[in-house]
Amino acid sequence: VTTLPIEMEPIDGGITAPSGFRAAAVSCGIKARALDLALLVSDTPASAAGVFTTNRAVAAPVLVCRDHLARSSGVARAIAVNSGCANACTGKPGMTAALEMAAATAAAAACPVEQVLIASTGVIGLPLETAKVTTGIARAAGELRRDANRAAAEAIMTTDPWPKEAALRVMTPRGSFVVGGMVKGAGMIEPMMATMLGFVTTDAAIDPLQLQRALRSVADETFNAITVDGECSTNDSVFLLANGTSGVTIDESIYPLFVAGLKGVCETLAKEIVRGGEGATKVVTVRVTGASTTDDARRAARAIANSPLVKTALHGGDPNWGRLVAVAGRAGVAFELARCRVRIGRAVLYENDTVHAEREPEAAEHLKGKEVDLEVDLGTSGASEATVWTCDLSAEYVRINADYRT
Amino acid sequence: VTTLPIEMEPIDGGITAPSGFRAAAVSCGIKARALDLALLVSDTPASAAGVFTTNRAVAAPVLVCRDHLARSSGVARAIAVNSGCANACTGKPGMTAALEMAAATAAAAACPVEQVLIASTGVIGLPLETAKVTTGIARAAGELRRDANRAAAEAIMTTDPWPKEAALRVMTPRGSFVVGGMVKGAGMIEPMMATMLGFVTTDAAIDPLQLQRALRSVADETFNAITVDGECSTNDSVFLLANGTSGVTIDESIYPLFVAGLKGVCETLAKEIVRGGEGATKVVTVRVTGASTTDDARRAARAIANSPLVKTALHGGDPNWGRLVAVAGRAGVAFELARCRVRIGRAVLYENDTVHAEREPEAAEHLKGKEVDLEVDLGTSGASEATVWTCDLSAEYVRINADYRT
Repeated sequence: VTTLPIEMEPIDGGITAPSGFRAAAVSCGIKARALDLALLVSDTPASAAGVFTTNRAVAAPVLVCRDHLARSSGVARAIAVNSGCANACTGKPGMTAALEMAAATAAAAACPVEQVLIASTGVIGLPLETAKVTTGIARAAGELRRDANRAAAEAIMTTDPWPKEAALRVMTPRGSFVVGGMVKGAGMIEPMMATMLGFVTTDAAIDPLQLQRALRSVADETFNAITVDGECSTNDSVFLLANGTSGVTIDESIYPLFVAGLKGVCETLAKEIVRGGEGATKVVTVRVTGASTTDDARRAARAIANSPLVKTALHGGDPNWGRLVAVAGRAGVAFELARCRVRIGRAVLYENDTVHAEREPEAAEHLKGKEVDLEVDLGTSGASEATVWTCDLSAEYVRINADYRT
Repeated sequence: VTTLPIEMEPIDGGITAPSGFRAAAVSCGIKARALDLALLVSDTPASAAGVFTTNRAVAAPVLVCRDHLARSSGVARAIAVNSGCANACTGKPGMTAALEMAAATAAAAACPVEQVLIASTGVIGLPLETAKVTTGIARAAGELRRDANRAAAEAIMTTDPWPKEAALRVMTPRGSFVVGGMVKGAGMIEPMMATMLGFVTTDAAIDPLQLQRALRSVADETFNAITVDGECSTNDSVFLLANGTSGVTIDESIYPLFVAGLKGVCETLAKEIVRGGEGATKVVTVRVTGASTTDDARRAARAIANSPLVKTALHGGDPNWGRLVAVAGRAGVAFELARCRVRIGRAVLYENDTVHAEREPEAAEHLKGKEVDLEVDLGTSGASEATVWTCDLSAEYVRINADYRT
């Protein structure tokens, strides 16, 4: 293992911050008056990687992307994304629509169809209005710009409260490269292998196999470590395009710098999803320690992060540590009550089978903030740990999802 | 398999409907002014069975009950229950308090301590105020009555909106016997092996091993088939006492009648828990068919029943069948999208990869009711199925649990 000094700086520009990428966003008519279609084009063929939902009710665009990545051996020129309709559970007409969407994108980018990736997000079971989408793509092709990143991030939103983007410049001994990205996702968020819709670009040069390896490992520690409501959607996809226009080639010697830059962008985007979770008022970092295995630690952290009783208590600012213990106890992992430890903020509320009620005011104070930090030590002799990010559960989440289609 | 005509009639009297049982309820001072302590006594030693939480953060009273049932070989005379404090995560002082609670109950019922069962429900991590409980038990012992069943059902409530009880008279060729019961449970409800607090009595005569066998199998189909919020508590317990005073002895020939009567009472009580779930406005029957295995069917049904997106859509009266498909797809079970079928009420909304949007108004009409019935066929070649009962998720659930301790 070589350790390189990692030097990175946040920059503006989101998905088009890396050189050689242009984007456009239009209102194609799926949504009433809002931007609902984004197009991203690389000026040159880019190495392409993707991680996709593990949901077995997989949407048509995901099937198309898997096929295209295989047929192109990991090369892509363009990505088209619509919001307002997920094109999921739409049967054969849905697949036809997805293929027409891909064909229109290939025409717009003047590239082979297998070098096109597509994504859809929105209501499940609604037919995709193909004419609107293909007309929109043709129009967007005439409006591609280097500074349309924010409009593109807006066009992929559903219930997201704001557009989410990030970019970093990464210094290497051979010069610098840029990683940029945008993401959407507010409900139906619990990644399994991949998550929601994420789009990441870089002007580094890296071959498709290494690119896929980097995306897979980074996704596990970022997008796959968040949960809003424990739901894994039919359309979850994260795409990564690398067009090499920075002139910096990623080989094994600077691969760690590439992963660090990629992780920096992905972690920022992942936390933004949580921060903008449906009805969320707090971002919660759930850390589980003292686990027998990493798998146990992840399982317990995820159980806590998805517990409605924990999430409502956090929403109410109640340092109800007993609920944390109860969830850890039911998570199906090795657990020793007598050696379990619970911390909220800096206040250890339960340790060595002893309750520290006198520290609850300190914990309650911590819970008033927008950033909550809590830790449960499972009390086993193991030292494995995991971190998951989530948000609180508010009445607003219920309102949003009770009324989603009305 | 012999099939007997099963003849049963609902009767009043709840937990003391069977002969030979008396109850009392007092306000011992854990809660401000409400009933918070119930005592149940059998006039004669009764066969006793129990099923308990699988949560590893198990509460002190559960440990005491397991020990007592083993030491008494399944015989009990009395059960004491307090609400307002779960006596869970309370360390050694909590165990001492539980043993003192049992000792006071033994004194009150004039029986060996191992013939006593105890239960606590309420806030986790709060010390049990032993003096209040033991004084309350002594006072309750002087007030035992045949008609205190409803007061007892009230005394075990926490956030329950109403007391929950049921009783049935079961006819057999040798005369009739009665099964009665009461239950509490509103949040932190997802049974694993047992669930919440349930107390069932019968005046049938049945030996402890058969009693335990009957309770285990019936609990799996009733209390273990409900979920409010996917949480398995630290204190979940269901107790069953059989004192034999009806003169009807349960042998293998009429055992099916005993199970039928027991199931009748337990199913009523289990559904009452769901109906009174925190913030619930609807009782939802989730049926999963076309599964490869019964385990798959149960897992998918439970995933649907615990999905916040499904539960909020039901709350909003939105026939958003796409969410049902999405949850079935992520449930980790065998699933064939092209042959999946979704029904809400009588309206089949998705079948053979085809969306029937024209039937949504009929489904929406069904969702206006208090009783919702839905079915997801997983589309596999298997024919296994399972049913789970749950409730919708409302803003009121969030309010209750955000403010529980304040």
